[in-house]
Amino acid sequence: MLNIARVINIIGLLVLIEGLFILLCLVPSFIYRDGDLPAFLLTSALTFLTGGTMWFFTRNAGKSIGKREGFIIVSLVWVVFSLFGCLPFWLSGYISSFSDAFFETISGFTTTGATVLEDIEALPHGLLFWRSLTQWMGGMGIIVLSLAVLPILGIGGMQLFIAEVPGPTKDKLHPRVKETARRLWGIYIIFTAAETILLLLGGMNMFDAVNHSFTTMATGGFSTRQESIAYFNSPFIEYVITLFMFIAGTSFILSYFAMHFSFDRVWKNEEFRFYLALVFIFILIIGTGLAITGFGGQEESYRTAAFQVVSIITTTGYITSDYALWIPFLSALIFILMFIGGSAGSTGGGIKVIRVLLILKNTYLEVKRHIYPAAVIPVKLNNKPVSQSIIGDILAFGFIYILILAVSVVVISSLGYGMDTSIGAAAACLGNIGPGIGMVGPAENFAHFPLFGKWFLSFLMLLGRLELFTVLVLFLPSFWRK
Amino acid sequence: MLNIARVINIIGLLVLIEGLFILLCLVPSFIYRDGDLPAFLLTSALTFLTGGTMWFFTRNAGKSIGKREGFIIVSLVWVVFSLFGCLPFWLSGYISSFSDAFFETISGFTTTGATVLEDIEALPHGLLFWRSLTQWMGGMGIIVLSLAVLPILGIGGMQLFIAEVPGPTKDKLHPRVKETARRLWGIYIIFTAAETILLLLGGMNMFDAVNHSFTTMATGGFSTRQESIAYFNSPFIEYVITLFMFIAGTSFILSYFAMHFSFDRVWKNEEFRFYLALVFIFILIIGTGLAITGFGGQEESYRTAAFQVVSIITTTGYITSDYALWIPFLSALIFILMFIGGSAGSTGGGIKVIRVLLILKNTYLEVKRHIYPAAVIPVKLNNKPVSQSIIGDILAFGFIYILILAVSVVVISSLGYGMDTSIGAAAACLGNIGPGIGMVGPAENFAHFPLFGKWFLSFLMLLGRLELFTVLVLFLPSFWRK
Repeated sequence: MLNIARVINIIGLLVLIEGLFILLCLVPSFIYRDGDLPAFLLTSALTFLTGGTMWFFTRNAGKSIGKREGFIIVSLVWVVFSLFGCLPFWLSGYISSFSDAFFETISGFTTTGATVLEDIEALPHGLLFWRSLTQWMGGMGIIVLSLAVLPILGIGGMQLFIAEVPGPTKDKLHPRVKETARRLWGIYIIFTAAETILLLLGGMNMFDAVNHSFTTMATGGFSTRQESIAYFNSPFIEYVITLFMFIAGTSFILSYFAMHFSFDRVWKNEEFRFYLALVFIFILIIGTGLAITGFGGQEESYRTAAFQVVSIITTTGYITSDYALWIPFLSALIFILMFIGGSAGSTGGGIKVIRVLLILKNTYLEVKRHIYPAAVIPVKLNNKPVSQSIIGDILAFGFIYILILAVSVVVISSLGYGMDTSIGAAAACLGNIGPGIGMVGPAENFAHFPLFGKWFLSFLMLLGRLELFTVLVLFLPSFWRK
Repeated sequence: MLNIARVINIIGLLVLIEGLFILLCLVPSFIYRDGDLPAFLLTSALTFLTGGTMWFFTRNAGKSIGKREGFIIVSLVWVVFSLFGCLPFWLSGYISSFSDAFFETISGFTTTGATVLEDIEALPHGLLFWRSLTQWMGGMGIIVLSLAVLPILGIGGMQLFIAEVPGPTKDKLHPRVKETARRLWGIYIIFTAAETILLLLGGMNMFDAVNHSFTTMATGGFSTRQESIAYFNSPFIEYVITLFMFIAGTSFILSYFAMHFSFDRVWKNEEFRFYLALVFIFILIIGTGLAITGFGGQEESYRTAAFQVVSIITTTGYITSDYALWIPFLSALIFILMFIGGSAGSTGGGIKVIRVLLILKNTYLEVKRHIYPAAVIPVKLNNKPVSQSIIGDILAFGFIYILILAVSVVVISSLGYGMDTSIGAAAACLGNIGPGIGMVGPAENFAHFPLFGKWFLSFLMLLGRLELFTVLVLFLPSFWRK
């Protein structure tokens, strides 16, 4: 029997926490007084009332949460958060369509960064702050989800990536979530604060610095500026953001080790080395390509390459240069990066560096097996053999990712969009990147999508953020049986 | 030790056989006398001389062929055939660049159907006939390769697809190849003759009928007409070709059973049922889509849908309507079909229906495993469990296919082509289809590619035709060791 009451209880509790974050927006709203105060007050009231009611009437539901309850809570909470979170945009009238407001909010909570806004700077400060905060909260959520919850649910090989998570290793959801959250959120907050200080030093005002630190660490990519990071026109700011995007795309466990001076554990980590190598190689090729094709001087070319490579591979989606206008070869390289994504245990989306690495290793061994059929060579990671069931899980993840992309391309094209826009929008939303190619390229937005398109893309963002399986199992009839 | 002499001996023998086929072209060349006779005479002489020399000096090389020799022979023979096969085009001056002539010929032997010709009908009859004949020979080659040679080499799960191949089941290459060739080529020839008769009844002249039967049964798609099948403007001809393309995209083992009245073995075959279901569903959707969007009457819409769906899924590549001009939704569906391909043991290319089916089944089970982790449910085909090593092989095949596509998109874009053309050219060549999307769409050709592009795409055709692994193992250093 599903413990529905307990599901409602936990979601109620989480909605109350969301309410607290919404209250935070009253600060910029009070300071700037540019018209979003009533919307925040009304939303807070509604959120606390609903969350409180949900929690109160189910408070005796018992403590036990099974795996199935886990799947339901994780999938639902992102949707419920977006339903409440979109209210400030909608009630203030700044986003007049509820679907648009929902799209913008789930794009925030999933740290995607796709926007329907055609003039971001027209928004009052409270709403801009809330928009960035949804991403920061989404980043917090994903750290706990990927490092504490999904491994227990056994999703997409996540159990492997967190073999070294500090904290209780028992299969109990509650203490593990709590302990992981405590340790890793500390790091998340420290990095956010450090970036804010550096951005202030770079000449950003306090408001912009906080907002961009929120959306950098979440690899979200929402900006307070229509032109994104290009607006600031500051090499120093670009270098700072590149560095923090890179960190945010790295497993927070590695950051934990680095902060405890265990640098060798960072350096010996194969996923990290592969991530570093990919970033380095792509910067080298794209930077050289930009320099050759007259984009700018050496420093500017490599800086821009570094910024866009890190922005896309980490699925942040900030822009300093419209890569759609580069020569096709360089745009194509950026396009390929869209599918790799961040490291496991980071806030980045996409397929994830470690899955790409293990798929490549396994594939290489399969080709080799044609010469030496007798030799059974297991795939190794960090010098340890990886179990066949985890490899199978990861391969399945890869195929589902591609299958969902293919179906999405057909669905989006049914709205009248051409091939590049269909692929671009599907890749950008499923990978939680934000900008894609075609009519959703860096200089564009998602406003032109019809209603159905926005809900469909919202669903893709959720699927991608929750590592596909978490949501997909809910669609299996066998999930609901017994 | 590699038995290089034996490799040369066998290839020499095969080149002599190619010489016999080139001699066949003297018939149309004599009848029409439109200027290609000297080129054919010279090519024949060169081919017989070289093949004979290769064979003569290695005739005492011993009979044994190991697996490694097998890989080398299979990969080399397609290249060597194209080197000799392109001579008539080049020596006659009708294709002035050697690279272009090679591209056209390997496109023929791999049954791809991509062309560099901008005015097909300007070619003399002998050359047109040779162009179609390369595809017909390629089809013959692929039947033997996929049903007799690759299973023994253990390529891409091919050992599974041919579990029921009639003939000797011992692991000896020689008798198996001979027996399979004898039985299945008989069917191939019967179908070719039957189609020729039906096309003659449909009003085609003898020359066009023979040529199109050759390229239909090979799922090659070369036409003697610039407009492809649209030229004939005959519903009867379209229905006949649709039927034979469908048959050519089915395993020739099933045709063998059907000819021996074992219809239940055909009907019970899961790959066949899935192939039939795919074709049916896509025709239904695209036909309805065409009818709704004012393409033509009901019959014309569904006929055109049937023709293009079967032409693309079987990787033939004939055209009766430029699908690039349909609404994006319908073009996108055709684009998806490019990746499925024909059945295993057919002359079709692509990933293959059975691999897609097994990947889908395996992926579904992996998702299900998240609810019931304890249950180990093997993937079944035709009610028999499929071994995990074959599934692993097929999954690896899928990833390599996608990986090669991704790399190819980057390579092609480096020549200055946009996203859709890069994806279209890569998919069309790797899948042995012929036309793609963008600047290689149904109304276009491959003439505009620079030299490097043509050689690269030629390589993709070879990779795709030889089920990737056959060629890829040659690039492993360990293949050449010991």
